Amino acid sequence: MAKVKKPRRPQAETPKGFRDYFGHEVTARNGMLRAISKVYELYGFDPLETSGVETVEALGKFLPDVDRPNEGVFAWEEDGDWLALRYDLTAPLARVAAQYRNDLPSPYRRYAMGPVWRNEKPGPGRFRQFYQCDADTVGAPSVAADAEICAMLCDTLEAVGIERGDYIVRINNRKVLNGVMEVVGLAGDDKEAERGIVLRAIDKLDRLGVEGVRALLGAGREDESGDFTKGAGLNESQTETVLGFVNAGGTTHAQTMHTLYTLVADSATGTEGVKELETIAELLAAQGYDPDRAVIDPSVVRGLGYYTGPVYEAELTFEVKDEKGRVRKFGSVAGGGRYDDLVKRFTGQAVPATGVSIGVDRLLAALSAKGRIAAQGAGPVIVTVMDRDRMSDYQAMVGELRAAGIRAEVYLGNPKNFGNQLKYADKRHAPIAIIQGGDEAESGVVQIKDLILGAKIAESASLEEWKSQPAQREVARGDLVAEVRAMLNSQAE
Amino acid sequence: MAKVKKPRRPQAETPKGFRDYFGHEVTARNGMLRAISKVYELYGFDPLETSGVETVEALGKFLPDVDRPNEGVFAWEEDGDWLALRYDLTAPLARVAAQYRNDLPSPYRRYAMGPVWRNEKPGPGRFRQFYQCDADTVGAPSVAADAEICAMLCDTLEAVGIERGDYIVRINNRKVLNGVMEVVGLAGDDKEAERGIVLRAIDKLDRLGVEGVRALLGAGREDESGDFTKGAGLNESQTETVLGFVNAGGTTHAQTMHTLYTLVADSATGTEGVKELETIAELLAAQGYDPDRAVIDPSVVRGLGYYTGPVYEAELTFEVKDEKGRVRKFGSVAGGGRYDDLVKRFTGQAVPATGVSIGVDRLLAALSAKGRIAAQGAGPVIVTVMDRDRMSDYQAMVGELRAAGIRAEVYLGNPKNFGNQLKYADKRHAPIAIIQGGDEAESGVVQIKDLILGAKIAESASLEEWKSQPAQREVARGDLVAEVRAMLNSQAE
Repeated sequence: MAKVKKPRRPQAETPKGFRDYFGHEVTARNGMLRAISKVYELYGFDPLETSGVETVEALGKFLPDVDRPNEGVFAWEEDGDWLALRYDLTAPLARVAAQYRNDLPSPYRRYAMGPVWRNEKPGPGRFRQFYQCDADTVGAPSVAADAEICAMLCDTLEAVGIERGDYIVRINNRKVLNGVMEVVGLAGDDKEAERGIVLRAIDKLDRLGVEGVRALLGAGREDESGDFTKGAGLNESQTETVLGFVNAGGTTHAQTMHTLYTLVADSATGTEGVKELETIAELLAAQGYDPDRAVIDPSVVRGLGYYTGPVYEAELTFEVKDEKGRVRKFGSVAGGGRYDDLVKRFTGQAVPATGVSIGVDRLLAALSAKGRIAAQGAGPVIVTVMDRDRMSDYQAMVGELRAAGIRAEVYLGNPKNFGNQLKYADKRHAPIAIIQGGDEAESGVVQIKDLILGAKIAESASLEEWKSQPAQREVARGDLVAEVRAMLNSQAE
Repeated sequence: MAKVKKPRRPQAETPKGFRDYFGHEVTARNGMLRAISKVYELYGFDPLETSGVETVEALGKFLPDVDRPNEGVFAWEEDGDWLALRYDLTAPLARVAAQYRNDLPSPYRRYAMGPVWRNEKPGPGRFRQFYQCDADTVGAPSVAADAEICAMLCDTLEAVGIERGDYIVRINNRKVLNGVMEVVGLAGDDKEAERGIVLRAIDKLDRLGVEGVRALLGAGREDESGDFTKGAGLNESQTETVLGFVNAGGTTHAQTMHTLYTLVADSATGTEGVKELETIAELLAAQGYDPDRAVIDPSVVRGLGYYTGPVYEAELTFEVKDEKGRVRKFGSVAGGGRYDDLVKRFTGQAVPATGVSIGVDRLLAALSAKGRIAAQGAGPVIVTVMDRDRMSDYQAMVGELRAAGIRAEVYLGNPKNFGNQLKYADKRHAPIAIIQGGDEAESGVVQIKDLILGAKIAESASLEEWKSQPAQREVARGDLVAEVRAMLNSQAE
């Protein structure tokens, strides 16, 4: 008889570019999402949860962001239909707004939070599944809707624990840029390539500085390696106009507006855009959102190619060290803007929409950096098993603790080796272990062991301290819950 | 020049078998998941969140449940790797338990909640994405772990709003069934087909009754349509033994144990299984989980083919009307058991594990049926726009309301038609509308309109009531927040 070949064992591996979240990582994110949704609800937004799967047709196969035109989605064929995992929460919103347009209230104000998937090359800190948390108003033509989202963004950041002064919401407007393009003669359909070069040049301001951008707006730029990037071919006056736009952020709001109005005076679109910015700034100021929190800033260009009107971005301004130890500002954690064309794909009718997306993982990282998220959640009180025949007694103890709202469990591994039980308690970050052997049961007592204090003593304390504050105490069985609670309180001090 | 064909507009449609969840549907589910996770945490379980995507290799391509061997998963090839959407939360747990086995505490106690995907034919109420909510203990050989999960299941159901008396957790053991198979001579490798027929026959007890099952255990059964189902071919004595097992649930726990011990006296496995059930019952009774909440019931066969030891199922016992108007018990909302082989796929080593999965949507439906979930969440207070130049004033009103914790928004659609604003308020289930025209602004007052009372009056009230309790009142602008709060309180009464 032929020998049957034993099948190879499957690999236990997270797929490439995906990751697992354990314990406190999950709790911290859920807590943050809850805090965000509370603000969104307060502002009148209603939750919407679509499924992770959409038809490729409804989704559009590629990301709409021009900065990344070729990045894909996870897609597959199913009985002749092409399905795909959503790559953001905006595309499903556009589908919903079109599909239910006769039933939804108008404006439709919804928030959504959940995972999205990108078929991108994974990198350090870049995953193929991550969370987004969006709020959008569909069907509101007024820039009051944009102003409101900016105000809400400020409130949201403060609600999750970013202090005032540690963030700034910057606001710009695509229409002003369009006006600048008109003024410098790049408005025509035949100038798309040049407009693209200008947009990409502006986007590099942070990295290349004004002179680098100036070169890219003109003839071109050679980098350190000797590589040459072709420029937009603007003359000096055109270049100054574009740079004037980017650098229009003045010391006062009035000054910024004046500079912008002057720059685009010859463009109706541009003037309309500046007017919108002015209205937004007035609405925000009237509600107490001053330029130290929300400011008009023409140097914001992220998404300018994607959005059709106001754009906004939340930046965290405190400093952190990057992976190479260099001090830098934390940077952007949320962005959004007005996009009036998304629903049109389905219905042929333009529907004005504006909204924001918070990068959940970035914001979590920021809160960690600010010490707003505990590194570790509280583990359960562990009731150890000295005598496996008295499991009922131990279960009764955890039953009492849980009834008092105290997180607790009996050790459920093989109880033979007591050292393993304490090692387990340690791995679970248990604050307290309960021990009751046969003698103690007969005398009606239990030992409660303060594992936090025990660890401190083991680390550093002198013999005197150990004696004056023993990490293990014998208490009456009837006092178990009260004594555990007292010990937990003293640990929290 | 050839005319460019205009591309067809994409369809705005949820993919077949998927659905969207709006507003209160999302809030209600999140609230329930939060209540469940609170109990799981109290019991010492830690959250784990894996991604929706796994390798097909890690997942296994098909559902492990023998009752549904051919149902598929959503899978696709990606750069030579096959990826798939997870079909449950147990397979990813097995992968995690194997992948991190040197780092995780042992036992590893985790809970997980999130969507899973099944590539099944959609049907009424059957969707291709749905939520599960699991808790498992990996690495605990003792049935104390099973008993604990059953206790936790009782606590969880009560925590979400199912009253004691409206549910029962039924517990059985695969080993007892294996013992029965041994006793009737169906234990051998060559009897797998017969064992399958016996399992499926038992599973039909509810539908076919004892006589139907008896026929299927014997020669076979002809149904009403004349179709013949081949039986397991057991003789009368074998059949009686199997039926004796299924019907062993006695009026007392002691009686059930006695019947089971007698039935499987000749099988070591069976005797061990009965002993395990006895231990579980004792542990539960010691903690006050009496047979009116958690009971040993050998008629539970769901999952018996999949699990390797104790199995348990939570059934809701109150009656509801089905889609045809017939009164029936609500039925199962959660199930689980012990599966000692899942991690073995990866490591070659058997790891004892036991856990439960709650059917989130079923449980939500049950809570709705019991009136535990409001049909509708509270809408925001709507500040209407009478004069679009005074947007700042209206924004200031919602700002004050929000600062007082009251959900509120300004109408952000086109304000021209005031009727549309009130229609919007109605669609949003707004409790109150605020109105302030130019005259009112000058006099320093606002109108607050009680939309709940207004709707009631419109429906039924007499003219006298209308006069004595007007649905709209003029209040001083400075009293806005206080008056709105008072009106909300009176609505809540």
